[in-house]
Amino acid sequence: MRPLQVSARITKRFDAAWEALLPIGRDSTTSGYRRYAWTPADVACRAWFQEQARVRGLTVERDAGGNLLAWWDDSTRDRSEAILTGSHLDSVPDGGAFDGPLGVVSGLCAVDVLRERGVVPKRALAVGVFTDEEGARFGLACIGSRLLSGTLSMAAAYGLRDAGGLTMRDAMLAAGVEPDETQTLHDISRFSAFVELHIEQGKGLADGDSVGLATAIWPHGRWRYVFRGEANHAGTTRLTDRRDPVLPFAVTALAARRIAAEAGGLATFGRLLVEPNATNGVSSAVHAWLDARAPDATVLQALVDSIASAATAATDAHAVSLDVTLESSTPEVRFDSHLRARIARALDGEGRAIPALSTGAGHDAGILSSSLPSAMLFVRNRTGVSHSPLESADHDDCLDGVSALATVLEDLLCR
Amino acid sequence: MRPLQVSARITKRFDAAWEALLPIGRDSTTSGYRRYAWTPADVACRAWFQEQARVRGLTVERDAGGNLLAWWDDSTRDRSEAILTGSHLDSVPDGGAFDGPLGVVSGLCAVDVLRERGVVPKRALAVGVFTDEEGARFGLACIGSRLLSGTLSMAAAYGLRDAGGLTMRDAMLAAGVEPDETQTLHDISRFSAFVELHIEQGKGLADGDSVGLATAIWPHGRWRYVFRGEANHAGTTRLTDRRDPVLPFAVTALAARRIAAEAGGLATFGRLLVEPNATNGVSSAVHAWLDARAPDATVLQALVDSIASAATAATDAHAVSLDVTLESSTPEVRFDSHLRARIARALDGEGRAIPALSTGAGHDAGILSSSLPSAMLFVRNRTGVSHSPLESADHDDCLDGVSALATVLEDLLCR
Repeated sequence: MRPLQVSARITKRFDAAWEALLPIGRDSTTSGYRRYAWTPADVACRAWFQEQARVRGLTVERDAGGNLLAWWDDSTRDRSEAILTGSHLDSVPDGGAFDGPLGVVSGLCAVDVLRERGVVPKRALAVGVFTDEEGARFGLACIGSRLLSGTLSMAAAYGLRDAGGLTMRDAMLAAGVEPDETQTLHDISRFSAFVELHIEQGKGLADGDSVGLATAIWPHGRWRYVFRGEANHAGTTRLTDRRDPVLPFAVTALAARRIAAEAGGLATFGRLLVEPNATNGVSSAVHAWLDARAPDATVLQALVDSIASAATAATDAHAVSLDVTLESSTPEVRFDSHLRARIARALDGEGRAIPALSTGAGHDAGILSSSLPSAMLFVRNRTGVSHSPLESADHDDCLDGVSALATVLEDLLCR
Repeated sequence: MRPLQVSARITKRFDAAWEALLPIGRDSTTSGYRRYAWTPADVACRAWFQEQARVRGLTVERDAGGNLLAWWDDSTRDRSEAILTGSHLDSVPDGGAFDGPLGVVSGLCAVDVLRERGVVPKRALAVGVFTDEEGARFGLACIGSRLLSGTLSMAAAYGLRDAGGLTMRDAMLAAGVEPDETQTLHDISRFSAFVELHIEQGKGLADGDSVGLATAIWPHGRWRYVFRGEANHAGTTRLTDRRDPVLPFAVTALAARRIAAEAGGLATFGRLLVEPNATNGVSSAVHAWLDARAPDATVLQALVDSIASAATAATDAHAVSLDVTLESSTPEVRFDSHLRARIARALDGEGRAIPALSTGAGHDAGILSSSLPSAMLFVRNRTGVSHSPLESADHDDCLDGVSALATVLEDLLCR
C-alpha cells in the first residue's frame, strides 16, 4: 500500500468533524442512525454542517428545497464553471455512519487539504448537502437532487407526505424552516462538474484498492405489491375457506429471489405492511414493496415481469387479488466518460491506478448526471455491509478518500 | 323454521340497545371496530352498558380489573348460587359488530324477556362485561376472565404493556379509572353457572339451525418466531452475501399451511413485524406470530413441532438465526357436561333440538370453565366470516339467540 497522503493536521480535522457528527440521530438501542429529513436529527446534522463551514470560512446558502451549499470562493472569482462536491446527511432507518456523511466530511476536509497544499483555484468550489437522499420519510429518494435537476417540482416536493400524513411543507415548518415555492433553487447550470465521494456499498473493493471510480448505476425501481384477501378468525376459519394474502406473498418473495439469481440481478422485499396485523386473525391485506435492479434495462424488465407472473399465479391459487404499481423507476446512469477519464488521469498522476466499478445503488450523482457531468469516488467497505449499523470503513481508507477527492478537485479547479 | 319467540316489544328493545352501540369505535374508512381495552371507544362501550343497565333497573358493579356486572336481583334474594351470563365489548383490530357485543346485548334483553314472561327467579342473575377478551392491546387475551378465575394476578395485569409501552395501569388511569390492587375482584365462587352467548365464528351452523351449543374449545397457542439476519443495502449486496430473514419466514408460512392441512388443524401467521422495514434494504429481522390450533393436544404438539422443524431448516439454508418462544397456551376446554345436558333439555322442552359443535376460538367461557360450570350458545354466522368488518348474523337469528338464552336462564334461575 502507498503511504497515506494527508498530514497529521488534516487527520485531526477529519476526526474532529467526524466525531462531532457521530452522536447525532444515533439510536441508543440499535446503534443505527435515524436521520430522516426534517426531523430534529436532520436539523442537528444541518447545524453541524453550518458550523463546519463556519470554522473553514465557507459561506452556506440554503435553497427552497433545503439543499445546502458551502462555498469556497472569494470576491475575485465568479461562480460560473464552478465545481460541486458533497453528498447527503440523512439516513435509512437504522443506517450506518458513512452512507452520505463520508462524502460531506470528505468534501469539507478536501478544502483543508487544498489550502494546505497552497492551491489557488481558478474557479469556485461548493460542498453540497442534498435533502432526503434516502427517501426514508417521504417515500421518494433523492428529493434534493431531483429538485436541482428539475425532474421534481417544488410544489410536488412540498406536497409529499410521510407515513403520518404530514406534508414535507409542514415537516419543514416544524423544523423551523419557512417553505416558500417562490424561493429559488440553487442554479445547477453554473457548475461544470459534480464529484460525489461515497462509501462503497458492496464488496466491490473489499479485496482491492481503498478508492474506486464509479462507471455506472444499474437501472432500478420500486414496485408496490398489494395482495388483498379477506380478514377472518384464525381459530375458526377452515383452511379451505381462507383467502390469506400472506401465503401468495410468501410464494412471491421466494420466487423473486430465484428469478433474480437466474437473471444476474437483485430483487428484495424489505418493507411489508400487514392488515390488520392481528395474531389471531387471517390477514385482509399484505402490502409488499419490491426493490429490483439489474445491469441493464432489458434484464430488469424481464426480471420484474417474471416476478409479477409468479405473484399472479400464487394469488389465483389462494383466491387473493393482486395489484402491482410502479412507485419509482430510475434508468441506467453511465457517468460522464470525459470526467471519468480526467479523474483517472489526475489520480494516475500521483501513482494511483484507480479501479472502476458499477453499483446497484442510487445516488444524488446519478440524478444530477442528467444536468451536468458527474462522477463518483467510492471508498472501500471491507465487509460490504450497507444500510445497517454494521456498515464500516477503515479510518485509513477514509483519509485516502479525502486525499483522492482533493487531488481530483484540484485538477478540476485549476486547469 | 319455528316462528320467532320474542315479542315485538323485545325486538324493539334489542334494536334500540344494538343501534346505540353500533357507532362506537367504528372506523369510518374500514367500517371495522377498534374497541381496544381502555381506549375512548372502550370507555364509551362501558358507558353504553351502564346506561342499558340503568334503564332496566340493574345495578352495575365494577371490580379492580374493570369487569362489569349488572345485577338483576332484589333485597329478598341473596347472591349465592347466582347465575352469570354476558360476554365482552372489546374488539380485534377492525373486528365485526357481533363478536362479544351480541352476548352482552342478548344477556340484557334476556332479562327483558324473563320479565315479560313473568318469571320469578329463585336466585340472582348477573350480566357481565369482561375486560379485554381479544387481547388486541396488551397481547394477552381474556384478561378480565383470567383475573376472575385467579390465573392472572392483579399486579401482573396492571403491569402488562401495550405496543406503545403504556402499562394497563396507566391505560386505566388515562381512561379515568383508578387502578387499585387492594380493590377486590368479583367473587366468582358465588355463581353456580355461566352461560355465554356468542356469534359462531365459522360455518358450523351455516346450513343448520340458528342457535347451537358448544361442546369444546380446541387447545391453542401463540408462538413468536424471530428470524434474525443482517440489514444490508438492497441495491448493492450480492444475493449470495445476504442473510435475508424474509425468505425463511416465507418458507415457514407456506410450510405451516401445508402441515396444518395434513394434521387437520389450523396454523396462521397473521401478525408480522419487519425490521428496519425499508424499501431499499435487506431486512435485519422478521418477527412473526404463529397461531396454531388442533382438535386435541397431541395433534397440536405434532403440528407445532413440524412447523418449527421446517423453520429451522429454512433459517439454516439462509444463514439466519431463529428463536421460537411460546407466548400463550390454552389447553382444551370441554364445557361442563351436566350444564350442557340441562341446557339441551330446557331448549328441547320448547321443541328446539339444539345442534352441538366445537370451536377453535378462545372465549371468556373457556377461561371461566376452570372455576365454575360454563357453557356457550352460538348464534349462526351464515358466511362464517369473523374478526372482520364483514362478520354478520341475521336479525332473526339474533332474536332467536335472545329467546334461547332467556329459556336457558329461566331454567337455571327457577329450578
